[in-house]
Amino acid sequence: MTGTIARAGWICLAALVSFTAAAGPKPRARDLGVPFDGTPGPLNAITDVAGIEVGFTTLISGGAGDAAGGPQVRTGVTAILPRGKAGFDPVFAGYFSQNGNGEMTGTHWIEESGFLEGPVMITNTHSVGVVRDAVIAWQVKHGFVPRTSSAGRAWWSMPVVAETYDGPPLNDINGFHVKPEHVSAAIDGAGTGMPMEGNVGGGTGMHCYQFKGGTGTASRRVDTAAGVYTIGVLTQCNCGARNQLMVRGVPVGQEIPLEKRLLGGTGRNAAPVDVGSIIIVVATDAPLLPGQLKRLARRATMGLARTGSSSGNYSGDIFVAFSTANSTATQKPVASLTMFSNDLISPLFEATAQATEEAILNAMVAAETMIGADGSRSEALPHDRLKAIMRKYNRLKEPGR
Amino acid sequence: MTGTIARAGWICLAALVSFTAAAGPKPRARDLGVPFDGTPGPLNAITDVAGIEVGFTTLISGGAGDAAGGPQVRTGVTAILPRGKAGFDPVFAGYFSQNGNGEMTGTHWIEESGFLEGPVMITNTHSVGVVRDAVIAWQVKHGFVPRTSSAGRAWWSMPVVAETYDGPPLNDINGFHVKPEHVSAAIDGAGTGMPMEGNVGGGTGMHCYQFKGGTGTASRRVDTAAGVYTIGVLTQCNCGARNQLMVRGVPVGQEIPLEKRLLGGTGRNAAPVDVGSIIIVVATDAPLLPGQLKRLARRATMGLARTGSSSGNYSGDIFVAFSTANSTATQKPVASLTMFSNDLISPLFEATAQATEEAILNAMVAAETMIGADGSRSEALPHDRLKAIMRKYNRLKEPGR
Amino acid sequence: MTGTIARAGWICLAALVSFTAAAGPKPRARDLGVPFDGTPGPLNAITDVAGIEVGFTTLISGGAGDAAGGPQVRTGVTAILPRGKAGFDPVFAGYFSQNGNGEMTGTHWIEESGFLEGPVMITNTHSVGVVRDAVIAWQVKHGFVPRTSSAGRAWWSMPVVAETYDGPPLNDINGFHVKPEHVSAAIDGAGTGMPMEGNVGGGTGMHCYQFKGGTGTASRRVDTAAGVYTIGVLTQCNCGARNQLMVRGVPVGQEIPLEKRLLGGTGRNAAPVDVGSIIIVVATDAPLLPGQLKRLARRATMGLARTGSSSGNYSGDIFVAFSTANSTATQKPVASLTMFSNDLISPLFEATAQATEEAILNAMVAAETMIGADGSRSEALPHDRLKAIMRKYNRLKEPGR
Amino acid sequence: MTGTIARAGWICLAALVSFTAAAGPKPRARDLGVPFDGTPGPLNAITDVAGIEVGFTTLISGGAGDAAGGPQVRTGVTAILPRGKAGFDPVFAGYFSQNGNGEMTGTHWIEESGFLEGPVMITNTHSVGVVRDAVIAWQVKHGFVPRTSSAGRAWWSMPVVAETYDGPPLNDINGFHVKPEHVSAAIDGAGTGMPMEGNVGGGTGMHCYQFKGGTGTASRRVDTAAGVYTIGVLTQCNCGARNQLMVRGVPVGQEIPLEKRLLGGTGRNAAPVDVGSIIIVVATDAPLLPGQLKRLARRATMGLARTGSSSGNYSGDIFVAFSTANSTATQKPVASLTMFSNDLISPLFEATAQATEEAILNAMVAAETMIGADGSRSEALPHDRLKAIMRKYNRLKEPGR
Repeated sequence: MTGTIARAGWICLAALVSFTAAAGPKPRARDLGVPFDGTPGPLNAITDVAGIEVGFTTLISGGAGDAAGGPQVRTGVTAILPRGKAGFDPVFAGYFSQNGNGEMTGTHWIEESGFLEGPVMITNTHSVGVVRDAVIAWQVKHGFVPRTSSAGRAWWSMPVVAETYDGPPLNDINGFHVKPEHVSAAIDGAGTGMPMEGNVGGGTGMHCYQFKGGTGTASRRVDTAAGVYTIGVLTQCNCGARNQLMVRGVPVGQEIPLEKRLLGGTGRNAAPVDVGSIIIVVATDAPLLPGQLKRLARRATMGLARTGSSSGNYSGDIFVAFSTANSTATQKPVASLTMFSNDLISPLFEATAQATEEAILNAMVAAETMIGADGSRSEALPHDRLKAIMRKYNRLKEPGR
Repeated sequence: MTGTIARAGWICLAALVSFTAAAGPKPRARDLGVPFDGTPGPLNAITDVAGIEVGFTTLISGGAGDAAGGPQVRTGVTAILPRGKAGFDPVFAGYFSQNGNGEMTGTHWIEESGFLEGPVMITNTHSVGVVRDAVIAWQVKHGFVPRTSSAGRAWWSMPVVAETYDGPPLNDINGFHVKPEHVSAAIDGAGTGMPMEGNVGGGTGMHCYQFKGGTGTASRRVDTAAGVYTIGVLTQCNCGARNQLMVRGVPVGQEIPLEKRLLGGTGRNAAPVDVGSIIIVVATDAPLLPGQLKRLARRATMGLARTGSSSGNYSGDIFVAFSTANSTATQKPVASLTMFSNDLISPLFEATAQATEEAILNAMVAAETMIGADGSRSEALPHDRLKAIMRKYNRLKEPGR
Repeated sequence: MTGTIARAGWICLAALVSFTAAAGPKPRARDLGVPFDGTPGPLNAITDVAGIEVGFTTLISGGAGDAAGGPQVRTGVTAILPRGKAGFDPVFAGYFSQNGNGEMTGTHWIEESGFLEGPVMITNTHSVGVVRDAVIAWQVKHGFVPRTSSAGRAWWSMPVVAETYDGPPLNDINGFHVKPEHVSAAIDGAGTGMPMEGNVGGGTGMHCYQFKGGTGTASRRVDTAAGVYTIGVLTQCNCGARNQLMVRGVPVGQEIPLEKRLLGGTGRNAAPVDVGSIIIVVATDAPLLPGQLKRLARRATMGLARTGSSSGNYSGDIFVAFSTANSTATQKPVASLTMFSNDLISPLFEATAQATEEAILNAMVAAETMIGADGSRSEALPHDRLKAIMRKYNRLKEPGR
Repeated sequence: MTGTIARAGWICLAALVSFTAAAGPKPRARDLGVPFDGTPGPLNAITDVAGIEVGFTTLISGGAGDAAGGPQVRTGVTAILPRGKAGFDPVFAGYFSQNGNGEMTGTHWIEESGFLEGPVMITNTHSVGVVRDAVIAWQVKHGFVPRTSSAGRAWWSMPVVAETYDGPPLNDINGFHVKPEHVSAAIDGAGTGMPMEGNVGGGTGMHCYQFKGGTGTASRRVDTAAGVYTIGVLTQCNCGARNQLMVRGVPVGQEIPLEKRLLGGTGRNAAPVDVGSIIIVVATDAPLLPGQLKRLARRATMGLARTGSSSGNYSGDIFVAFSTANSTATQKPVASLTMFSNDLISPLFEATAQATEEAILNAMVAAETMIGADGSRSEALPHDRLKAIMRKYNRLKEPGR
């Protein structure tokens, strides 16, 4: 129910709303007839990879609709738990920075060890610190032992926290409104099932191709000689210039030019080139080694590129990939593992690019128009116009086709 | 004239043909009505960056049309000279490996020093060694001093040589038909002007999206607050699966499914996923530092992605970018430089992605059908069908529009 | 004066002490007769590089000597300001992770842009977040514009914060005792002049080769064809196993075996291999480009190696180097720079290794014995024994020699 | 027998000598009383790792002692076969470039795939190409299938070939005297057993710390909770300035200053800073994943640093590490592997540093004085003086102690 309220977007006045409820009947990109290649999982979401839990804390207060006044807050926290709340065993992981104008903490250890030893958190740029330390406090409180290095006792933790920028007019980013309890709430509220999309969690106040952006997800099932595996993607999308936007190759951004009256007329959104960032989290149950997961992370770039971005200078485009397989990987002294053959890996690359592309478009389709503190508007991608443009280019998948 | 002969492709029996002649009236991708963003330079080629010289040695002998018999040879050498034959001063450079199933020698020093100290050579996979040592011999012979480290005397050289695979049935790659004299010929024959495209130089025996591939080039002019700069790209394209091919977002590869009778029915081209490699060379006259050039190289991935590839496991997708500015960079003890502001660099990123995309399509449009030693065919991308498909998706730029 | 109190170490009960005062008459490594190569700057400190300011907040409370009781706090914050408090213009920078079992935030942007855009902060492992966000708050409060990307206005900041681990028994790390005001105090109190060493700032509760460790600094002046330049190093040293310790090649660690009764008898310090981390900050006024600074950072490993460490699995050995030259580097649209020739750079490499080695030994010589909450002791390196051992191996530089 | 002749060094006139014979009674560093930590394997050589074969081709002709005249040739080829001649199955591998002023081909694929798919070859700087292509020819000839990508058939190969520089006056490097048959001979002649050291193979004409250098090897056995594993190192050492040389911390280089009359009076050896390169190959039978092997490679730097080098600008210091475990790693579709726990890996790091340090010193102890074409001398490290200096610093391990 809180989920429903939150989906109303900017008029929601709740100070703290944590979501794990299933998504409502809002259409997603493919529901609108956008054609995609490949086969999605049952939810078409990162949670199609078994065991993954996702939670959000969405902070919406102040602004035009809030009688209580105060600064306009439109931000939040997203938590992705590779093995769920009950299983903080490390997962193999790799990361890639396509354009490092952003932060993702904890990557030195991912690169060094090949392990991700806790959740992946996403928030706004200026709240990375509070989220990081709050994850540690949560781990300490719950007695989790996030380190392979520990002999039954947690010594230290170096959480993975990423961000994109939701500064004014949408969010009072320098008010530091994310607090430790919001972090706990996102983790504690995480669940399997369909994650919410659009203006939720860390993605609440984000833009994408100068439309309203936010959180999106998608998945692909890949049938290989080793069995069927799933690739799941979750993105917090805050990147791109309007004229760059391509939807399955159709120049949608050029068909819907940026209007001067919209958010960004004098600010960031008016920039002629791509500004903003995108965080992409790739998950799989295929037994990939850390180096193979880095290869997957590098394919997120290719999905992003197909939506039009060329990773502008001001865009923090940092991607992390992990595998829930090999739960035995921290066995001592020697662990038994399985490794997916490089010879069969190309379809996983393609699936990563496909799911990334769809997750970005899902974020945009789900996001709803948000009004800034100065009255400017971050407009949602208009579904009807999108369909009309896709039809113009003979790329709309009509119902029943 | 030799150029014209060579353009006839596989029926040419010349044992050694070195090209620098201007291209003939063959259409390029935009001549067919493929719509592109951005503004190309006068030649729409890497040689729009002043001072760059390009040379090819194309080896075509044996095979169906060759009365003399012998193994079928369809290979060659491409030479890109950043400052031309007369100016081997180092240039700032950076490289990026999107998928390292390939070779590009000399990259350790590019990464370490930020300098490219000689030509970029491209050949077939099994001829990298002979080309490398032959470049050194050429440098020794001509008294060039390719090292910043030398005090007026060449001590050593570590040439940059890249490759893609042109193995049977098109080329007898294990016959090692590239010889040192072919390397000298490519360098000595290099010139400014429009480089040839298609079945020439190192690209002679290559495939691209399971059509005939090869060598392609394109450029963009970027108007910045610091003046107008050029981005030039040259690619040796040998990558991609048919069903992946997108031309400006249009699913051309899915519209022209791979026929069983074609080259690859039982070989590499029949693979369901992208196999093969692509080398992309990005050049600019903008005063970029080495780290900025690495950023450019990373955008070549984004141009490649827009043509459909997701950099399959067997694809060696390695990119190098260099700047002809800052010719004073090796001054001692302290050099005076200029540096293009990161704040203005995004349009150069976009231009790199655009020129890369167009160069790949130019390679495919220029390449001509080649018959393998076993009678199989590597079909050229059919121009008429391409136009028809682009029109079907309302993406053909009709003449006069 | 507060500085003097703090130097008394663990018996100091001050809740918050911020140091910029000059060091007292405590001996440093070379005062004891340890022989070093190369020529130090006037202070033999990172602040020999003009303009650099260093500040500390040292937190010492609770524990055996504290009548007020409470958990034992022995931790702090170190701030290194490349251009001082008044000059937050970016500096060229590069980083290197020798063993990434640690955190240094902000490195994605250093790697991408080549710039360090604010201070380098060092604290304990579980306080990285609070320090990070507090740096942003400080920047917001003071109206600094840390981004090259800003047009006269600060949009966002991604602070560089590193850490080593000072967990129990020395410090109640999970009590999260570092607060935002401690961060402000370290920055506001920063100054030129000789930084304090030993149990100060982020280094307060650290060990090094299973002796008491902490903060150390050193410098080298290098006479080159381009003039005299300075290399300065500051380290927060918390690494190494006792038996590894070498002092100028002399096996001091093997000569002073670890006693069971000391700190670590049942804890971390008893580990037979190197545990703990080391952060090394390298500064110079030589006009090095980002790639060259990364090269410098990689030489910090070599200085570390000469003290005996082999960068154990649990050691977060992450190094950052920056240059105060080229203050014009963020000029738009094109900046004028100077670049130190690679051909002359080797002496700067050697100076970096030398200053790193000496800074580590200075940290150990300055650090004073600290008693843990459980009564265990982290013993200081005994000066007399050190001298005796150096003499035994004919490596003591006797006074007057 | 030929081995014995070759050990006579520069007076040997044999045009082609391939060695696999066991070493003679020449002393090694520890035989002279140089004290080392850790426990070596039976041979104290890389071949203590079971299955590894090493072969050399040493080319010595021309020069003062050669009645036949001709240019002075002092060069060669070294071959390291991870699984011997009969087993070209890939091994897991990782590499690291401490200073990339050098070449090691094939590293893009090592980085991408985690596999080394053939031998590691080492030669002189200007013969990398011929060695590379000759390895392919050898693989083609012998029907080996070096690619994981191949389904029972070799498609392509990207050999790993590294180098250091042996230019005039010792070797006529620009005469390109290494030929394909020398490559075959090194591979075909490879064997288990003690490899030769000093002036052999690729190391024939090398210097080290301005003494005669060349090929050296060492090993360590590490007793872990998972069993006993071996670390083996082989180095081709050509780096360092005289005054930098440290032997177990003793400043031997400063005790034996460079004499003007020696080789380098007017050439490279007179340089005041470290010039030249070092290739280090680390092998183990511990089941390390590719990322863990990269960690090992990074520790080779630490062993190198302890001999005095700070990796000067002109030094190509590139290291590769591989594991002979996990012979099943290329199983399809999913391989079963074992992985050594990161928690236990530190002793392997220390062993790598130790074996690297000893291998370098072994190269210097084994190398014999060589006279250049101009009559200059590259002096061997004098054993008696080394012992006297070690004794002066109380670091000589006297016999019986």
